[in-house]
Amino acid sequence: MNNTNNRRVGRYTVKLLNPPAIIATTSIVGPKEGKGPLKDYFDVVLTDDTNGKESFEKAESSMMYDAIQQTLDKANLKEKDIDYLCAGDLLNQLSSSNFAAREVDMPFIGLYGACSTMSESLSIASMLIDGGFAKYTIASTSSHFSSAERQFRFPLEFGSQRSLASQWTVTGSGAVLLASEGNFPRVTHITTGKVKDYGIKDPNNMGAAMAPAAVDTIYNHFLDTGRDGNYYDVIATGDLGKVGYDITVDLLKEYGYDITSSYIDCGESIFDNEKQNTCSGGSGCGCSAVVFCGYLYKQLMKKEIQKILLVSTGALMSPTTSFQGESMPGIAHAVSIEF
Amino acid sequence: MNNTNNRRVGRYTVKLLNPPAIIATTSIVGPKEGKGPLKDYFDVVLTDDTNGKESFEKAESSMMYDAIQQTLDKANLKEKDIDYLCAGDLLNQLSSSNFAAREVDMPFIGLYGACSTMSESLSIASMLIDGGFAKYTIASTSSHFSSAERQFRFPLEFGSQRSLASQWTVTGSGAVLLASEGNFPRVTHITTGKVKDYGIKDPNNMGAAMAPAAVDTIYNHFLDTGRDGNYYDVIATGDLGKVGYDITVDLLKEYGYDITSSYIDCGESIFDNEKQNTCSGGSGCGCSAVVFCGYLYKQLMKKEIQKILLVSTGALMSPTTSFQGESMPGIAHAVSIEF
Repeated sequence: MNNTNNRRVGRYTVKLLNPPAIIATTSIVGPKEGKGPLKDYFDVVLTDDTNGKESFEKAESSMMYDAIQQTLDKANLKEKDIDYLCAGDLLNQLSSSNFAAREVDMPFIGLYGACSTMSESLSIASMLIDGGFAKYTIASTSSHFSSAERQFRFPLEFGSQRSLASQWTVTGSGAVLLASEGNFPRVTHITTGKVKDYGIKDPNNMGAAMAPAAVDTIYNHFLDTGRDGNYYDVIATGDLGKVGYDITVDLLKEYGYDITSSYIDCGESIFDNEKQNTCSGGSGCGCSAVVFCGYLYKQLMKKEIQKILLVSTGALMSPTTSFQGESMPGIAHAVSIEF
Repeated sequence: MNNTNNRRVGRYTVKLLNPPAIIATTSIVGPKEGKGPLKDYFDVVLTDDTNGKESFEKAESSMMYDAIQQTLDKANLKEKDIDYLCAGDLLNQLSSSNFAAREVDMPFIGLYGACSTMSESLSIASMLIDGGFAKYTIASTSSHFSSAERQFRFPLEFGSQRSLASQWTVTGSGAVLLASEGNFPRVTHITTGKVKDYGIKDPNNMGAAMAPAAVDTIYNHFLDTGRDGNYYDVIATGDLGKVGYDITVDLLKEYGYDITSSYIDCGESIFDNEKQNTCSGGSGCGCSAVVFCGYLYKQLMKKEIQKILLVSTGALMSPTTSFQGESMPGIAHAVSIEF
């Protein structure tokens, strides 16, 4: 029997007592991401961003399905071995995830945290193992530039100009397979974010909307665990881009924490913004998913790094609420992964 | 320390070892729901379905906020006592939940399972307590006829005719407060559903799309636990309506289970379909939420019933995927609540 609070180390953070092992990951990206600075780390680079499907939405869903299947293959497991699939994406009604889940024989938990969904799904998938509910779980997210652009902004055919602070939704999907046992990097702590809103109303400036949420979650993680910027080899926010990166560094300094030695932003790392014309950097659920599943996990496995804090960050904007004059709340969830 | 699999009793079902107590609930409904057969069970019946707000979306979000606050008040708890708020709704980007969460000081987990979200959020909120991650959690969902109608179907001003198999989205929100201790009804088993698709393409016939998912989950629950239709005082599906109710009874009979003695559908119970012109019955995340938080919980507390299986059911349709010719997958999650 558990003491009901024996995993809780602070208001926002739990310490996992049977830390789940990340036994396999897969990262699939589109052609543009496959030409960026991290190109050598991705498992699959599509040559066609429709992935052979008849719509961008179906392409996105098929990328998630493929990422899940390839992850199972790497671990030599079958669909029926997986106790829970925890997944989400940016599309209305989570259609990429739902349609990918339709094709697999796994109990399904749908999650929405906008671009924070990778660390949200990792959090839930990890707690389900740690709590004794599951032996194997999969956490997965996806996003697609072309499906997101027409849902959140303008039809591609419209050819609208992009502002300098705008971000480029990553075409990609990542899947993470967690297990109760194994000599692999483990999820050790989870800090769950609150919804924060600093009144940003410009949907082309998501980095500024999300940065306060990232700062809040990282700060709470440090307070709850007694750790600081020097504890981690890498602290990776999801998709704050250039604009949000600077805000995060500055605000955390004001709170007394300097994270510059270990801090990267997945959105700033995935593209060469100048050469690839991606303005402030990448975004989308798929961004932190593929940077974690590709770049960071492979470095962990080679023991080039041993302790990371993944802080996926979401701008909880909706075209409807924006039209109704609302600002964009943000949220960030942090997952500590150590080998 | 947990044995990693000691809570799992079957492929789809976990048995909770420290069953969380449901120490308070709140149900808030719109004026139409407040004139239906269950009117005396709801905590709050709005006289104005805008709840004094300037849009239906803001009204929906404010209903969830109010349901959360009133639930806290009943239990004499503060926002900071809650370890996780697990919530979702039907609106794109979960905007009702996100904007309600923005106003409260609680770590937030956003969930999307369409109309299955009440039992999905109850599942996660319960496992977080049972697994030792939380002392108090809140599960909440909402829906609103007018915000759903214009998002999923037609603008209200269009005045479109309704088909006989169509359902009426419930205007309402329910909040459930779970605790690690207390002499209250407890969540004892959770059966998590898979995404099922039987090829239904008519968004005005959601009951037929969701019924196979409900059947699958109830059947798996029976197989995993050794229980049957006679074990429960009430088995309540979410919002299958008249059409889906009959399909569910018939299909389960084919699998060898007769549930007619205990079976109700929340969507069929909430309205007097003939007098209230609601065709096949109510639907929406808020439907099973308010029927559980109002009608069923109050009967549990009076010990008029002692064992219920709540099976909220979701049609995972999206206007985009429907336009692209896809059928509507369904999902259902079952939560066993016993006093």
